[in-house]
Amino acid sequence: MRGVVMHAPGDVRTEELDMPVIVEPTDAIIRVTATCICGSDLWPYRGIEQLNGPQRMGHEYIGVVESVGDAVVLVKPGDHVVGSFVASDNTCEICRAGYQSRCVHQVMMGAVGTQAQYARIPLADGTLVVTPGEPPADLVPSLLAASDVLGTGWFAAVAAEAGPGKTVAVVGDGAVGLLGALAAAQLGAERIIVMSRHADRQALARRFGATDIVEERGDAGVAKIKELTDGLGAHSTIEAVGTQESMDQAIRATRAGGHVGFVGVSHDVSIDGLELFFSSVHLHGGPAPVRRFLPELIRLIWDREIDPGAVFDLTLPIDEAAEGYRAMDERRATKVLLTTD
Amino acid sequence: MRGVVMHAPGDVRTEELDMPVIVEPTDAIIRVTATCICGSDLWPYRGIEQLNGPQRMGHEYIGVVESVGDAVVLVKPGDHVVGSFVASDNTCEICRAGYQSRCVHQVMMGAVGTQAQYARIPLADGTLVVTPGEPPADLVPSLLAASDVLGTGWFAAVAAEAGPGKTVAVVGDGAVGLLGALAAAQLGAERIIVMSRHADRQALARRFGATDIVEERGDAGVAKIKELTDGLGAHSTIEAVGTQESMDQAIRATRAGGHVGFVGVSHDVSIDGLELFFSSVHLHGGPAPVRRFLPELIRLIWDREIDPGAVFDLTLPIDEAAEGYRAMDERRATKVLLTTD
Repeated sequence: MRGVVMHAPGDVRTEELDMPVIVEPTDAIIRVTATCICGSDLWPYRGIEQLNGPQRMGHEYIGVVESVGDAVVLVKPGDHVVGSFVASDNTCEICRAGYQSRCVHQVMMGAVGTQAQYARIPLADGTLVVTPGEPPADLVPSLLAASDVLGTGWFAAVAAEAGPGKTVAVVGDGAVGLLGALAAAQLGAERIIVMSRHADRQALARRFGATDIVEERGDAGVAKIKELTDGLGAHSTIEAVGTQESMDQAIRATRAGGHVGFVGVSHDVSIDGLELFFSSVHLHGGPAPVRRFLPELIRLIWDREIDPGAVFDLTLPIDEAAEGYRAMDERRATKVLLTTD
Repeated sequence: MRGVVMHAPGDVRTEELDMPVIVEPTDAIIRVTATCICGSDLWPYRGIEQLNGPQRMGHEYIGVVESVGDAVVLVKPGDHVVGSFVASDNTCEICRAGYQSRCVHQVMMGAVGTQAQYARIPLADGTLVVTPGEPPADLVPSLLAASDVLGTGWFAAVAAEAGPGKTVAVVGDGAVGLLGALAAAQLGAERIIVMSRHADRQALARRFGATDIVEERGDAGVAKIKELTDGLGAHSTIEAVGTQESMDQAIRATRAGGHVGFVGVSHDVSIDGLELFFSSVHLHGGPAPVRRFLPELIRLIWDREIDPGAVFDLTLPIDEAAEGYRAMDERRATKVLLTTD
């Protein structure tokens, strides 16, 4: 089968790989029908995260179950499924509290590599959610988005307590930030301010529900958000970048008593304790427990109430994955979908 | 009138000061019937916080209203009152959201100095809460505690989402941490683990509702809390110290999806973004909005349902304030009450 391997920063190749096999009785093997490239895949691509030798890539996927281990009871061969980027048993105390991304038996799907024609899914019963049938072709991108980028944006909006009467600020106009805006709109937010200086992303943000766009960054961006909120700051801020600047901006743009939901994987970010103390904000984030939201997200997509697949602006066959990485790295594409047949 | 002034680290004196007068029409003048020394007063006393010349001290107080400005309508001369350590209008959007300590018109009472026989209370209508009558002598310490140390411990427990079914860990066995344990018990927590290695404070913690004591600190303390919680960590952790070690300990002792309420004024604390990201905890704290809780705290004290005044283990006349500072600095006393008559 064909699958994507990163050999070094900037060096991504699609290669012939061994077919995955059932290892644990809780595993399933799926035929991946669509996968994609994540903003987080760019960290090693850019040399910011270390690679330890060649690495299988990918953690987002939808597919069809091919075979299951003896202990799997909730999914069966032929089922069309969407799964989270973290495999979880969905039964431990942490999962039951809604934090499946921190399941006591968690397996990061990045270690499996779903940018491939087939993938082994650990803890299949807890990880995979069956769709109501074979997805119509036009829903494939949206269902794929649910696997990570939508689920992550959704978690950010929930962590930021976006809701009716709230003004939500979004720091980051990548796919996660844009889908955070979509989530905030679905959750009933009154006003959604997206920070972006790219016309195409501004347009998508507005399509997803943004009511205001702020082009300024850093202190000027914070000042602009205060200006739009009677000097108080946003009730809810989504941080979807993961840099020092974006985290500082998110905390400073939020009013006392407000909530920051942060989902950008923090790289070299340090939060000053005294500043956080006097900010009086709530801070919550981390790897999104996508599994918590998947059933509802699949329903919203299936009923065509949301269209998160619009974040994909480039589709390539998996054999051209290298071009997909380049396009995202150079910001020629927001999010790249890889087809596998 | 007599009042306390810090001239330099370690140099505290009780001096003859001018009587306060009404400055703004929203002011009240109160005769202070009891005041106390706060753990945070030790920061400048120990030279960790800079003093800019001689400084009036104190921000905790109960008293009797002497006179009010023209705009004051909710309190009147003769009223017995308790107030927060932050003066607030209690009407702005931030106050109405429950964050009176970050009122858009906030005045820190430390700038006023309540370790004195009389004090000017700004924004009297929003700041002062009238008690049902003249407090019986035995309730004075508890009502005074409500002004800051109880209100702060209470906020920490609320910020940590202590409640039924929850295991709460408390980092810090000072007065705030001990009253955080009391608050957790009142909020219905199932299990309350206090980290302390002082026999007298352990005893007080148990009296306030602690079910377990952990003597270990740092990584060993975290390991012990994990051991007591099926390896998962506490649901709710109260951080009531304000050092790097205590903040790290609090975050690491909390399970994924759990809540850290931090009220120790962070000094040289820096939170690693990546560690916080993968901890998946909620982090919330800051200067406690004591005013939010005061009516309920006064009721609980008046009805003798709680006895937070037990944290005072030394009472001195205000003229002996210097000895009170020494006793707290040397940890001979947990909390010192100053009488003013």
